[in-house]
Amino acid sequence: MTDFLTLYSPATVANMVCGFDVLGFALEAPCDTMHLRLTNQPGITIEHEDDFNLPTEPARNVAGAALLALLKAAPAGTGFEVRIRKAILPGSGIGSSAASAAGAVVGANRLLGSIFSREELVRFAMFGEEVASGARHADNIAPAIYGGVTLIRSVEPLDVVPLSAPPLHVTVVHPQIEVRTADARQMLKQQVPLKAAIRQWANVAGLVAGLLQADYQLIGRSLEDVIVEPVRSILIPGFAAVKARSLEAGALGGGISGSGPSIFMLSKDEPTAQAVAAAMRTVYEQLGVDFHIHVSTINPAGVQFKE
Amino acid sequence: MTDFLTLYSPATVANMVCGFDVLGFALEAPCDTMHLRLTNQPGITIEHEDDFNLPTEPARNVAGAALLALLKAAPAGTGFEVRIRKAILPGSGIGSSAASAAGAVVGANRLLGSIFSREELVRFAMFGEEVASGARHADNIAPAIYGGVTLIRSVEPLDVVPLSAPPLHVTVVHPQIEVRTADARQMLKQQVPLKAAIRQWANVAGLVAGLLQADYQLIGRSLEDVIVEPVRSILIPGFAAVKARSLEAGALGGGISGSGPSIFMLSKDEPTAQAVAAAMRTVYEQLGVDFHIHVSTINPAGVQFKE
Repeated sequence: MTDFLTLYSPATVANMVCGFDVLGFALEAPCDTMHLRLTNQPGITIEHEDDFNLPTEPARNVAGAALLALLKAAPAGTGFEVRIRKAILPGSGIGSSAASAAGAVVGANRLLGSIFSREELVRFAMFGEEVASGARHADNIAPAIYGGVTLIRSVEPLDVVPLSAPPLHVTVVHPQIEVRTADARQMLKQQVPLKAAIRQWANVAGLVAGLLQADYQLIGRSLEDVIVEPVRSILIPGFAAVKARSLEAGALGGGISGSGPSIFMLSKDEPTAQAVAAAMRTVYEQLGVDFHIHVSTINPAGVQFKE
Repeated sequence: MTDFLTLYSPATVANMVCGFDVLGFALEAPCDTMHLRLTNQPGITIEHEDDFNLPTEPARNVAGAALLALLKAAPAGTGFEVRIRKAILPGSGIGSSAASAAGAVVGANRLLGSIFSREELVRFAMFGEEVASGARHADNIAPAIYGGVTLIRSVEPLDVVPLSAPPLHVTVVHPQIEVRTADARQMLKQQVPLKAAIRQWANVAGLVAGLLQADYQLIGRSLEDVIVEPVRSILIPGFAAVKARSLEAGALGGGISGSGPSIFMLSKDEPTAQAVAAAMRTVYEQLGVDFHIHVSTINPAGVQFKE
């Protein structure tokens, strides 16, 4: 593997409660490991070093579709060989497909001498998301590539706004049930009450101000979703209990990660994030639902290369 | 008038395009002038030093209703005499009623030895807004009292978030037509498409980030309203032309001030704000509509006392 570039592509949390479809952040862990190298013949070869049986045909593979989009803008004759070892479980709601797509294009760009901007890489990687969920969204892709917390102000034209944030500790619980992104999307009403929309954008404004001004209490007060969570949380067993217990344990707030089933909570410090993890564990042990828990910080760098 | 406290209460711009019902900012000019003093007998006396024929009965007067709310929390036996000279035309859409209500309670609080917090003053002043428009809203009141740009994250419980902003120059044109706030409210649909709501909160997030990060271009890109402006701007003759000409003249962006009919535009510097004023003038001269124009900066202090 000495002639391969090795990188780590992070899990991400999209939506951030009130910021449905527009906010997201990157986690330090878990991360997928990817190896990429340039090849002599054009085209893309994908191998998996894990047991998820994901497709390897480039057009049907998330990393492959992202690289095919990149190849159209790359010098003629370019080819990549990609090996992927996923640690972010597909279907967990913490940006598994985004990690594959983001890692692939960031790695490819490095191998090509960094000829593309981060915005261009986001655009390429969105083709990977389209393969995974049918929608070319960027709310996991952008934080995976930029790191930290990102705002997608607009997809067309693409406008990614990186947002500074104070130190935050994240507890994510992934109950082992399946929620398909496409199903979770279909549950949403196409019309929402204006009153609820106003309350939502007041909270989004509060959350952005809280992040940029490092005001933890304001972040906590603003983590309220009156539009999506009331509908989607029904799909997640134990959601209300996890949320109530986490707040009791000291979390600032949190909610559904992406379209679920993972639930994330933000805390001001590591001991609180661990106490939140213990509270989540209790809920799912009592419910008899298998689960994974990750305790992490926000990853400020996004995809990282092995030195 | 030597025993009167004299203060200047500023005009304010509510909504700030995408931030309908939640954002607002204070202007340096125009300002109402108010004189207040404590009286020996309890209750409120109001006199007007202008020609607007506003009611003087306290319960029907905006400043009076705000002071009646304050009196309920003040020491028994307190009374105020208030003289008001309005320079902010009632019905102009730049917070005329909010200026009366905010000035009254800020002045009264100073006379009482500053016993109330700014949030309490906002709560009292909202009773004045109720007299004026039937709704106890705070998006003009808060910037008049706090100064600068404010976010009302929540009205109940009240959560006012002051937002820092880079230097901004404001051009306001007030075409001399009548738009009643209550009518403008009734035009709005009670249900909005989820897609439009998402676009709106993406822009609100972008605007808050642009203000706090002093990113003028981001402020400009985020000044887009896909929900309220398309409906309400129909009531304002020349709206589309004013907007188009102002952007051509270099404005960052802008839109309806409050519920209109005033239109405001933000610019990075004073010469641009003057060029925008010239563009607005041309539009209304061609249309044959009388108008007033104000060129101002954002007022960082809110209500100010004469020293």
